[in-house]
Amino acid sequence: MSIKPTIPKGSRDFTSDVMYRREFIFENVKAIFKNYGYSPIETPAMENLETLTGKYGDEGDRLIFKVLNSGDFLSSVELDGSMSSKLLTKKIAKKALRYDLTVPFARFVVQNQDKITFPFKRYQMQNVWRADRPQKGRFREFFQCDVDIVGTKSLLSEVELIQLTDDVFSSLNIPNIEININNRKVLVAMVDIMGANNYFNDIVIALDKIDKIGFDNVKSEIINKGVSVDACKIMEQFLLCNTISELELLLVKSEMGIEGVKELKFIFDNIEKIGLKSSIIKFNISLARGLDYYTGCIFEVISKDLDIGSIAGGGRYDDLTSVFGKKDLSGLGISFGIDRIFLVMEQLNLFDDQIKKQTSVMFVNFGEQEALQCLPMLSKLRSNGIRSEIYPDCFKIKKQMSYANNKEIDFVIMYGEDEISQGLLNIKNMSDGSQENIDIDSFMKQIINHV
Amino acid sequence: MSIKPTIPKGSRDFTSDVMYRREFIFENVKAIFKNYGYSPIETPAMENLETLTGKYGDEGDRLIFKVLNSGDFLSSVELDGSMSSKLLTKKIAKKALRYDLTVPFARFVVQNQDKITFPFKRYQMQNVWRADRPQKGRFREFFQCDVDIVGTKSLLSEVELIQLTDDVFSSLNIPNIEININNRKVLVAMVDIMGANNYFNDIVIALDKIDKIGFDNVKSEIINKGVSVDACKIMEQFLLCNTISELELLLVKSEMGIEGVKELKFIFDNIEKIGLKSSIIKFNISLARGLDYYTGCIFEVISKDLDIGSIAGGGRYDDLTSVFGKKDLSGLGISFGIDRIFLVMEQLNLFDDQIKKQTSVMFVNFGEQEALQCLPMLSKLRSNGIRSEIYPDCFKIKKQMSYANNKEIDFVIMYGEDEISQGLLNIKNMSDGSQENIDIDSFMKQIINHV
Repeated sequence: MSIKPTIPKGSRDFTSDVMYRREFIFENVKAIFKNYGYSPIETPAMENLETLTGKYGDEGDRLIFKVLNSGDFLSSVELDGSMSSKLLTKKIAKKALRYDLTVPFARFVVQNQDKITFPFKRYQMQNVWRADRPQKGRFREFFQCDVDIVGTKSLLSEVELIQLTDDVFSSLNIPNIEININNRKVLVAMVDIMGANNYFNDIVIALDKIDKIGFDNVKSEIINKGVSVDACKIMEQFLLCNTISELELLLVKSEMGIEGVKELKFIFDNIEKIGLKSSIIKFNISLARGLDYYTGCIFEVISKDLDIGSIAGGGRYDDLTSVFGKKDLSGLGISFGIDRIFLVMEQLNLFDDQIKKQTSVMFVNFGEQEALQCLPMLSKLRSNGIRSEIYPDCFKIKKQMSYANNKEIDFVIMYGEDEISQGLLNIKNMSDGSQENIDIDSFMKQIINHV
Repeated sequence: MSIKPTIPKGSRDFTSDVMYRREFIFENVKAIFKNYGYSPIETPAMENLETLTGKYGDEGDRLIFKVLNSGDFLSSVELDGSMSSKLLTKKIAKKALRYDLTVPFARFVVQNQDKITFPFKRYQMQNVWRADRPQKGRFREFFQCDVDIVGTKSLLSEVELIQLTDDVFSSLNIPNIEININNRKVLVAMVDIMGANNYFNDIVIALDKIDKIGFDNVKSEIINKGVSVDACKIMEQFLLCNTISELELLLVKSEMGIEGVKELKFIFDNIEKIGLKSSIIKFNISLARGLDYYTGCIFEVISKDLDIGSIAGGGRYDDLTSVFGKKDLSGLGISFGIDRIFLVMEQLNLFDDQIKKQTSVMFVNFGEQEALQCLPMLSKLRSNGIRSEIYPDCFKIKKQMSYANNKEIDFVIMYGEDEISQGLLNIKNMSDGSQENIDIDSFMKQIINHV
């Protein structure tokens, strides 16, 4: 009896075509991170459930994939028919799949602090898992790509990460990138002036959706939570600010607000002086970032060409590690949404055809004796970094050529009886169909210039 | 209350030092795979439990990590105090973490057969998870690196994979690599001649341990299972064969045996003709490979310098995909044990110091104004691929220098008040302590030659 080959919903197989394009993104992104002095780390797929629980809100806790204890996990559990799933989970699952890279990173920093040089500049590119309802562009296993610097409060880091972000998207040739910037201190000051301090989280969560639902819906959402109509009028004034100078006027009386404005000014002034390669930066007072660990500058990146939400986002956090026992370690990070960046590049047709190229050269197989004569030439080509193969079986030429076509191979080499007696290769250029007879060394010179 | 930062036993954090060395291995291995025309694929971390169950024996089934169904997983389960862990698992866990790359690969091939060009040459480098008891060199999350060709019975593939294996280890500069080769058909014929067909699996499993436990223990193990003393005498004759010609004499009457010998001869003859870069190949009649899907040539790679078992291994299988509904798809694969290869390279001190290098250049931070003057120079260096950073805070020089030392940075640049007025950088070469004053363009030329 055979099993139907399927995979769990929300997960994906990546065929080679897709892999080559993903790797193209990874390699570019990595090279930029390294250029800025960031180093890679990795953490295990499974964390202790306790490490993750309570860090992502109730909804997040539900969406964490829990892993069953191994062995006879019921041996020390008294099963009871009225047990809830939640209670039983506690008794039979101590481990879970990581939900993001931020919490494991905070855990890593505290656990490995003796091995780390601070300020610690790291990047991390790994999968995360969420039991979210799968939909277009949302998967249960997806890739995150985070870069963080912890152990400094310097605003130079904000400037650096914005430059790095610009570098990432310009290296991928993605046009019309807009980096939206705001500051949590400004939002805290705004909510304070609104007299709505108790509703800070509600306001931030509602604001985060303003692009999708509009101001009126944001307003009714927070009024429903208990914010007053007068407070909403003050908020509206803030949301009308298009420049930092306008904002400054509204915040003159708030110490925290002034601090936030100062930070924003520093960042905008210096980015303007240095200049970005292709992105534009934009002050956006309605940018809120739903996560509650942010304390300073926040940013979010969008493609103006495609309406799929943010493709990168991050900000400054002043106290991410205290839950693991290390206080006052300020940091700044940004996360790149590789799956969405992939989508943007596909839609805008930005992947070079060359990326798909798997093999450059294929030898046709004319039979065992002929094939064996090709092996030393294959070694020679490979030693020179030319991706080469021989069709393993002596099947009909048509079948072998169709394989070469499907793999988008550049050159097909015929080395049959005739060619062997002449000592020359018959080489077919698959892109223009031309053929020529030359020796292996001349061919190699030619192809090295071509590849 | 703070949580103690720990990770599940048998799992690992990888710090940057280790990551750089692992990446060095990955990059080398990948380049070789691509040179031979193999393309990357990836499969999801979670497979349907049904896909994995029954493929790795009873012991394997126990060691698979199962993932709890998400949401209120008990809603449709009637809990019963006498339920066994095994029965409950079936009701509450439909998914599991992959246990190896072979079964997911077989599932992938069948599921994606319409998108695949056969013969399909793929490599796959991903983590796998096993609830094994952790010990030195054995982890619960570890990396596998598999390369396979399916859809051909050609022995050229065996020759190719042996060349590829040799290329991998020679590109990593690992000396004294021995590739042991045997053939399952020879073993089947031997067991047939022994008259012990019913004990084939027992004999193979025992033989697999001969290096560790010696012939006498192999013998008593299989005699305990029911193999006769006379049969063991025949086996001993086989095990004394050091060459394929000696073996041939014992197998003249066995059709299958002759077939196996023919395959071995083809491989050895042709490898001899082509030559290997640094490995040696050795016929080893006692090599058995414990997995029961192998049907032809099998191989296993060891380092003669370090007694840690095989660092790569594989073989031909004729029917891996039939369980998923596709019959008669012969293939050949080899799996590289990256964790063990890492260990060999560490022990033999084969990692170049350069691998650890994270950043080439660091600017000292003399204060906000000075630092801002460094930013355009940083951009210039980075645009030229020179990994550069500025210390984010204006702390004491000593602290900044110690950071540079820890990160093994090559050059530290002082660009303070004096240097700014002169328009020259003061550059300290951290390896020899020398200092000089030059302009940024000259420095860049110099370092591009250095890096």
